[in-house]
Amino acid sequence: MSVTAAQGFAAAGVAAGLKPSGERDLALVRNRGPLTAAAAVFTTNRCKANPVLWSEQVIADGVVSAIVLNSGGANCYTGAAGFQVTHATAEAVAAALEVSAGDVLVCSTGLIGDQLDLAKLTAGVDAATAALATDAGLGAAEAIMTTDTRPKQAEQRSNAGWTIGGMAKGAGMLAPGLATMLVVITTDAVLGSAQLDSALRAATRVTFDRLDSDGCMSTNDTVALLGSGASGVEPDLDEFALALTEVCRSLATQLQEDAEGASHDITIEVVNALTEDDAVTVGRAVSRSNLFKAAIFGNDPNWGRVLAAVGTTDAAFDPYRIDVAINGVQVCAAGEPDQPRDRVDLAPRAVRVRIDLHAGDEGASILTNDLTHDYVHENSAYSS
Amino acid sequence: MSVTAAQGFAAAGVAAGLKPSGERDLALVRNRGPLTAAAAVFTTNRCKANPVLWSEQVIADGVVSAIVLNSGGANCYTGAAGFQVTHATAEAVAAALEVSAGDVLVCSTGLIGDQLDLAKLTAGVDAATAALATDAGLGAAEAIMTTDTRPKQAEQRSNAGWTIGGMAKGAGMLAPGLATMLVVITTDAVLGSAQLDSALRAATRVTFDRLDSDGCMSTNDTVALLGSGASGVEPDLDEFALALTEVCRSLATQLQEDAEGASHDITIEVVNALTEDDAVTVGRAVSRSNLFKAAIFGNDPNWGRVLAAVGTTDAAFDPYRIDVAINGVQVCAAGEPDQPRDRVDLAPRAVRVRIDLHAGDEGASILTNDLTHDYVHENSAYSS
Repeated sequence: MSVTAAQGFAAAGVAAGLKPSGERDLALVRNRGPLTAAAAVFTTNRCKANPVLWSEQVIADGVVSAIVLNSGGANCYTGAAGFQVTHATAEAVAAALEVSAGDVLVCSTGLIGDQLDLAKLTAGVDAATAALATDAGLGAAEAIMTTDTRPKQAEQRSNAGWTIGGMAKGAGMLAPGLATMLVVITTDAVLGSAQLDSALRAATRVTFDRLDSDGCMSTNDTVALLGSGASGVEPDLDEFALALTEVCRSLATQLQEDAEGASHDITIEVVNALTEDDAVTVGRAVSRSNLFKAAIFGNDPNWGRVLAAVGTTDAAFDPYRIDVAINGVQVCAAGEPDQPRDRVDLAPRAVRVRIDLHAGDEGASILTNDLTHDYVHENSAYSS
Repeated sequence: MSVTAAQGFAAAGVAAGLKPSGERDLALVRNRGPLTAAAAVFTTNRCKANPVLWSEQVIADGVVSAIVLNSGGANCYTGAAGFQVTHATAEAVAAALEVSAGDVLVCSTGLIGDQLDLAKLTAGVDAATAALATDAGLGAAEAIMTTDTRPKQAEQRSNAGWTIGGMAKGAGMLAPGLATMLVVITTDAVLGSAQLDSALRAATRVTFDRLDSDGCMSTNDTVALLGSGASGVEPDLDEFALALTEVCRSLATQLQEDAEGASHDITIEVVNALTEDDAVTVGRAVSRSNLFKAAIFGNDPNWGRVLAAVGTTDAAFDPYRIDVAINGVQVCAAGEPDQPRDRVDLAPRAVRVRIDLHAGDEGASILTNDLTHDYVHENSAYSS
């Protein structure tokens, strides 16, 4: 049930002194092989943190021997000095593990614009290297937490003999999108980096890319997939893709359920769209409406705010044919009030909004959260 | 200082019983001529309220004799019955004023999905007709308020002898954008509807269209400009355009300063963009970042969140050459920390964020607000 569930991986989570609280803040995951295949996707934000700039180069050849992650600072907009810190961190890992620095992914999360303390990072890398273990996945998952209230882990085991395990942190958005989402997934299936890459892109497209907690996109988001091949089993590619998607979906849902300050987990299901892109566009527009999200916080099934958000998109639909159901109650049919809104029970944390566009056969669901006092509090009081 | 400041106009604001509170909720503005020239712009939301669908037809010929506005209900997504209510309201005004119903604009604001009470509207129209007066502009401005805490009015007088006056309601967004913004501007300058239309579009483009309080777009927004020609003066077109823009700017600023729950009025000034569109795109992206807006509420000059929002756009810029100043303190220079962030004083209500893209010579400013506990409260507790 962790980043070390698959054979061939060891992990560690240590306290390097980057977090003022003294909690664990540096994680290391090592791929012991025999393969060192890897794939990764990064934030599409044009303002990218130094570890993303570094890691985009590392992943180019599909070979990764280790990944080092720190909380306590994003190392973003810290200039050339900040890039040197990332580089030196990778060098420290390379020296400790006797691998090439060019095969070490680096991830950081925390406040933008502050320099990280390289001496603390280096000492942390040494401590983590010494602590590497096949049963230390939970410690690694804890070391990457920022405003997360709990570690996130997932696992899928195939009867064919291979395993996928993963860990994630992030208490906000995506696209892949700012509380920064960092995800490390490992597998012992025998796959090359190109196969890992296509499986990872397919899985993130329908999971992490459809989690949009607060519409903000991080400068640091990274999802990495490392393959050790240690099971010795070449998987059925379809089965692998399905299992990987399941691990991503589990981690994405855990991110949603731990989103900063949220009191509702909202699934916006768009059906009968002309294209899947239309469904995603409509779902995302609703997920980004502060008025809708505040209404859900207030347990108010305000479907007018749903339609107002739908109407801002260029998706194919007739505005006066749309149906909206909230938690199974069809409050709007063909653009007119249907069932009484007081039949909708918004007391449970899980909320499902179903939007029928009557324009085609495609669909998609977007995961989001409500807009709460606690969200405002966490994001006004906490510099991240 | 009101919608009756220009000659040729009379107004009234009465209590028609649409608001449960018993406060004024129906406004009427009559153009007594000699001209009945007019122009209007409406929400670009594809989910349009019935009064917008009606008024788009009315404005087509550029002739408007009167405009009737109600709070207490948006008459949006109320189906054919709702359209009939709008139509009947226009007919009631037409009968009372002995004009054509096709020359009567209708505006509504309030909750989506509820039918308005036609009998109350009709009685309110009769009462308003009886109360029409050239000194009743303030009453009209009060009658269109919803969550507004104060009426909004503006005026410009030319030495040449003509006047522009206006009123507005709205405590949220724009584009023109959901708390619904309704604006009525009147002038006694001698201008045709085509001249009014081009002046109005030019003025709204740089004023109301750059107010983006919470990123949400209403189904009901309307900005109408009525010309009576009663001054007998043909204005210099440039002077008129300038004065109209000033009236729009004043009303837009009043809307910003009364935005729901806001504790800061934020101007996002984007300079040295390659195009004006780029500047607007960048400013709007920052204005829609909940993380940035929550930070400002917390008096935290979190420039990392500014850059993270800028990075989501396709505007022309080098991410590592951008400068950011907050209230005059350059906190970020060329993508690196510059002045200490604790030099920024965010205690005042007015906040100015200046983003230098170093990509050209164009610029634009977007007006927005912070994201506060009171915003969440008002929009979770109040169905609008």
